[in-house]
Amino acid sequence: MADALTQLKERLATVTDLERVSRVLNWDQQTMMPPAGWQHRGEHLATLRRLSHEALTDKEIGRLLDELRSVEESLDPDSDDASLIRLTRRDYEKASRVPTELRAEMTRAAAEARTIWVKARAQSDFESFRPALERNYELRQRYVDCFDDVEEPYDILLDDFEPATTTAEVTETFNELKPELLQLISELRDEEVDDSFLRGTFPPEAQERLCKEVVTLFGFRPDTWRLDPTEHPFASGAGVDDIRITTHYDPETMKSFFSTMHEYGHGLYSHQLPRHLESLPTGGPCSLGIHESQSRMWENLVGRSRPFWNFFYPRAQAAFPERLGSVDLDAFITGINRVKPSLIRIKADEVTYGMHVILRFELEQDIVNGRVAVRDLPTVWNERMQEYLGVEVPNDAQGVLQDTHWASGHIGYFSTYLLGTVMSVQIWEKILEDVPDLEEQIERGEFGGLRDWLGEHIHSLGRKFTPQETLQRATGSTIDPKPYLAYLRTKYGAGVAA
Amino acid sequence: MADALTQLKERLATVTDLERVSRVLNWDQQTMMPPAGWQHRGEHLATLRRLSHEALTDKEIGRLLDELRSVEESLDPDSDDASLIRLTRRDYEKASRVPTELRAEMTRAAAEARTIWVKARAQSDFESFRPALERNYELRQRYVDCFDDVEEPYDILLDDFEPATTTAEVTETFNELKPELLQLISELRDEEVDDSFLRGTFPPEAQERLCKEVVTLFGFRPDTWRLDPTEHPFASGAGVDDIRITTHYDPETMKSFFSTMHEYGHGLYSHQLPRHLESLPTGGPCSLGIHESQSRMWENLVGRSRPFWNFFYPRAQAAFPERLGSVDLDAFITGINRVKPSLIRIKADEVTYGMHVILRFELEQDIVNGRVAVRDLPTVWNERMQEYLGVEVPNDAQGVLQDTHWASGHIGYFSTYLLGTVMSVQIWEKILEDVPDLEEQIERGEFGGLRDWLGEHIHSLGRKFTPQETLQRATGSTIDPKPYLAYLRTKYGAGVAA
Repeated sequence: MADALTQLKERLATVTDLERVSRVLNWDQQTMMPPAGWQHRGEHLATLRRLSHEALTDKEIGRLLDELRSVEESLDPDSDDASLIRLTRRDYEKASRVPTELRAEMTRAAAEARTIWVKARAQSDFESFRPALERNYELRQRYVDCFDDVEEPYDILLDDFEPATTTAEVTETFNELKPELLQLISELRDEEVDDSFLRGTFPPEAQERLCKEVVTLFGFRPDTWRLDPTEHPFASGAGVDDIRITTHYDPETMKSFFSTMHEYGHGLYSHQLPRHLESLPTGGPCSLGIHESQSRMWENLVGRSRPFWNFFYPRAQAAFPERLGSVDLDAFITGINRVKPSLIRIKADEVTYGMHVILRFELEQDIVNGRVAVRDLPTVWNERMQEYLGVEVPNDAQGVLQDTHWASGHIGYFSTYLLGTVMSVQIWEKILEDVPDLEEQIERGEFGGLRDWLGEHIHSLGRKFTPQETLQRATGSTIDPKPYLAYLRTKYGAGVAA
Repeated sequence: MADALTQLKERLATVTDLERVSRVLNWDQQTMMPPAGWQHRGEHLATLRRLSHEALTDKEIGRLLDELRSVEESLDPDSDDASLIRLTRRDYEKASRVPTELRAEMTRAAAEARTIWVKARAQSDFESFRPALERNYELRQRYVDCFDDVEEPYDILLDDFEPATTTAEVTETFNELKPELLQLISELRDEEVDDSFLRGTFPPEAQERLCKEVVTLFGFRPDTWRLDPTEHPFASGAGVDDIRITTHYDPETMKSFFSTMHEYGHGLYSHQLPRHLESLPTGGPCSLGIHESQSRMWENLVGRSRPFWNFFYPRAQAAFPERLGSVDLDAFITGINRVKPSLIRIKADEVTYGMHVILRFELEQDIVNGRVAVRDLPTVWNERMQEYLGVEVPNDAQGVLQDTHWASGHIGYFSTYLLGTVMSVQIWEKILEDVPDLEEQIERGEFGGLRDWLGEHIHSLGRKFTPQETLQRATGSTIDPKPYLAYLRTKYGAGVAA
């Protein structure tokens, strides 16, 4: 009979494999699956979810964890094995609260809702999506009800995406950001910046070539990745050697390029996770916030910076000669950093982006706590867009229906985007200390130094520690909005970008 | 507590879902997966296989089957439920013999061997593939050893692909075919037929358009299918509304067109399986032989026939004007039906095809029964190709390495191709009785009548009955090589095709 730790690892490998298989099916559903296949897919994902939930909550896992208590105490808390036991205890205790059937039903309902959402968004018809969304919220209510002594129901949901992080902590961070962002937006909103060259004809084939070029430049090991078109960009994959990123080729802009750099950041994180922990929960990503710190870093701190464009701009001009051929580098950099309140979160600039997130974070809590009804969402959404960003929402497709998250059952997810953005600047400043010539490297088109630093200080930690512990280890500090606000002030405060 | 039948169905739904998920992963591996992803994939498929095997062989299934014995006896044997109990008993008793770990190991080894085979074939290097193939055979030996009183070890392997069919039965059928095929080949081998227009430049984009056109013409429900390029064509999918067929675009021939019609036949079978049995083993395809009767029918009885080309030839000419523009219909039909011994099974004509299969069927038995060693396979292969088809094999890529089956662990599979071909003609003759104007329909480009007949008489039976019972129900007879031989004699005997 294998020892308790070996037995635990074998059982956890099943859980991990099932989750990775689900990721491939999710990718397939959004890129390849014939549309009519969604009915099968919902059942299949629900079955996988049920099996992984059963495997994780098997009483034998609880018994092994009890047996391992003294082993855990004898180990260095930073060791792989101590971290595994600690993390598994946390996962087991949370998952054991939730009946398998509820977990499977949440998955099934979300797969169906996502399909309904695709049609509803295409027709800008919130009402046709409302019942599916109500069902998702209702199932999350039942999920929250599985836990005792819940002071803030939203804590339970948030914790699924940003572990060991409370609503109060996020609120504190966001409260520090909100007035500063609103102030900065009001200063910048009427500034005249010419970015007309960013709209027009951007042939999708040229976009695709350029996106593949930048991914190749940033760098993955050969034969380990692919880039595909999808409606809503995301990163997925089955393991460190199977990375799948997606983007959306809008024929009238080059937004796909920035979204590709964003998804590259996610993909690189997955690519550099600890291979030796691959079959274990500790081998996964730490949290969505940490994930997003990586994607926002590559998209914004690299991808909207002068050093990067000093190197890359001739390639972009070659890809889109009609649009960019006669635009000089300064004008281009100013254009891609234009601050302008707008409707769509994923197309928002660095300054207004935060308010899109804060709006969603607040709305989710309002619904979960019964202050806003799902049927009133479009109205409240539109009012807050007016209040926070001063924009008029013309229809639900460009408003409350724009994101896939709620359809996909990812309620409690949005705040991680802004947490990640804030953390990305803290991490960036630390890298600049450790790699003083980072900007010169980027200017030469060299990204190995950046990749390696991220691999060593963040990616290789996997999920061994909580997000804040991970950030603390990498930067010496837990989350702090000040560096991010200072970065925005420096970059945009003078009214001239970059 | 649900009744025993409901409980059984719930448990079987898990098995079915896991198998369908594996199908999607297999499709992904062969069409989309970044090459380096194969290491993850092997583990993931092995885990799915282990879980489905555990679910099927759970003692509770045995208990439920015992409990259902009297229910089964009280039901009409043709009913869905009686068929389900009967079939599950058979599956359970076979699967229960096999340790879960062996099943998972067979899957893992096959996934690895397939990757090794891809490289070995590209380099025409049998030796680099030999250890992986030996491992596959060795695992099948252990598999056979799980059963008692095995007179013919090959029976156990064959039964996995063609259930309730023995080696002796197949041998009897093949022994009737072999002398006739050899005779026909010797009559036709030196015949001069001009098919030079089938070689040259066939732009892959034009091939792809034409392949999609014929699939659309033959017909699936909208949004339920896709066609992708792959090295080795196959059909897969996740259910009746998620059909995935693949083909290979060789830029110098239009073989992709015939392989697409072939895979369409497989796809249509999956598409018209009984939806109400979808989550149960009875909702699957009957056998590989029956599957192949469908694909060979669409490829050959439709796709190489005069009525089809009377309708379709102008479209092919429009797709390949340089190659076919000045070739008249008679010459084209004669060309695509040319009989000429050649190296590659999937490119073989209708007459020589059978000998490719018989060679493999015999070789598999030789290895399983220790008469031929794996290391001697290339030599024996080449000798038999000389003996049966009179062709010299120039290298292993065009010889023993040409097919994926052995790499993929599908040992015992090949005979089903010829069984299916034989059955396809029996079925075709029955359809011609029931739908007397079938050829006129095809001549008008109408395939609904053919689809419907196949749906009603074969596809809708799913896996409720054995292959021979299914054929008997559809045609009034079990397998009989005479109609097939008569068909070949009529079509080719006069020395002029079609």
